[in-house]
Amino acid sequence: MSLHPTAAHRLVAAMPEALLSRFARQRLLAGFLVSAPRAKPDRILMLREGRIRVFVANEDKELTLAYLAPGELFSTHTGAYLRCESESELLSMPVAEFARTMANEPGMLGLIMPVLGRILDNSIALIEDLAFRDVAGRLARFLLVAARQGNRVPQGVQVTLDLSAGEIAQLLGATRQTVSSLLSRMEREAIISRPGRKQLVILQADVLLRWQEGEAAEAA
Amino acid sequence: MSLHPTAAHRLVAAMPEALLSRFARQRLLAGFLVSAPRAKPDRILMLREGRIRVFVANEDKELTLAYLAPGELFSTHTGAYLRCESESELLSMPVAEFARTMANEPGMLGLIMPVLGRILDNSIALIEDLAFRDVAGRLARFLLVAARQGNRVPQGVQVTLDLSAGEIAQLLGATRQTVSSLLSRMEREAIISRPGRKQLVILQADVLLRWQEGEAAEAA
Repeated sequence: MSLHPTAAHRLVAAMPEALLSRFARQRLLAGFLVSAPRAKPDRILMLREGRIRVFVANEDKELTLAYLAPGELFSTHTGAYLRCESESELLSMPVAEFARTMANEPGMLGLIMPVLGRILDNSIALIEDLAFRDVAGRLARFLLVAARQGNRVPQGVQVTLDLSAGEIAQLLGATRQTVSSLLSRMEREAIISRPGRKQLVILQADVLLRWQEGEAAEAA
Repeated sequence: MSLHPTAAHRLVAAMPEALLSRFARQRLLAGFLVSAPRAKPDRILMLREGRIRVFVANEDKELTLAYLAPGELFSTHTGAYLRCESESELLSMPVAEFARTMANEPGMLGLIMPVLGRILDNSIALIEDLAFRDVAGRLARFLLVAARQGNRVPQGVQVTLDLSAGEIAQLLGATRQTVSSLLSRMEREAIISRPGRKQLVILQADVLLRWQEGEAAEAA
């Protein structure tokens, strides 16, 4: 079992094997649609291995709300789609049974709150993006948030991006083409540099801050 | 103390007075801004009395995510604004202290999950609105959701609306004028009727369903 060590630690600390064994266990292939809006009955899911994307969609477009990592719990009742991004091992239990048997186990709140809080934070940021920002502003915000996990280097802040331009576009409600051309423009204007395929250095965070507030359009 | 009976019951069941007394207690006037984005330190809030609006905003526009009711808990760290809509009594505690002293109290998960889940649901619905629907489609969705709490009458489903056109507009990312004129159009086309100031009857839910999918613009 190749669980992420921190997540595995949280799981083991919070849930004895006797509790884990009450969940149904499934091994799923990449691309499997775990849940669609209005699927019944509502279930609590715990990802043990792999990666799941939480998203909303219509016929034309998909918008990513979050990626779930091993050790994280989620519920199917939110009206979002859940799809395996890679081969995954998933535990699940009907919500009603979870509420009856496990909701008062010590540590359960600490296991559920972080992921629910993170998805809520992402959702609120996405609402602000859609309501208040153009795509350049959204991309600037996205890079500034990523920079918080980055490393300070002489030229600026180095960020590792695990997502493709298409995946970033789905997080921002934009097209892949727009994201790619905005990244090229940022490079041309020396706001960022891209030393490697998944590496990006933010050279001028102050310019990104102004883009976030809507100045990219004016400067274009 | 005029707590909503169900909420008060939940509070009392879940939190003995000894726990409640560890929260700081404030009495706040209508209009008081309880929290703004990036306010520190993060606090857990419990509304005992009154009504709080959770919203995001820029210079031009506000978008409502939810209204908190008595007995509900929330945290200030989400990046949303929190403002008292009426005179309110509020309990609060720093998140770090909450996590240390109360997170493992029995019943705490059941107290926090419903409101967090509801705000997450609202947020996801709002994202779908902003990304996928015109304002007519958003208003149709809003009325169909309200109809779930409505009463069946011979002509259709009667709904009590506690919100003004302006408040509905802020829930949908629209202007008050647009919402008012869409409601008038719905009335003119006998999709709804409005027998009283806060009363609305949905006469043709099937038409609202088609509006929700974007047909209002075509039919206009």
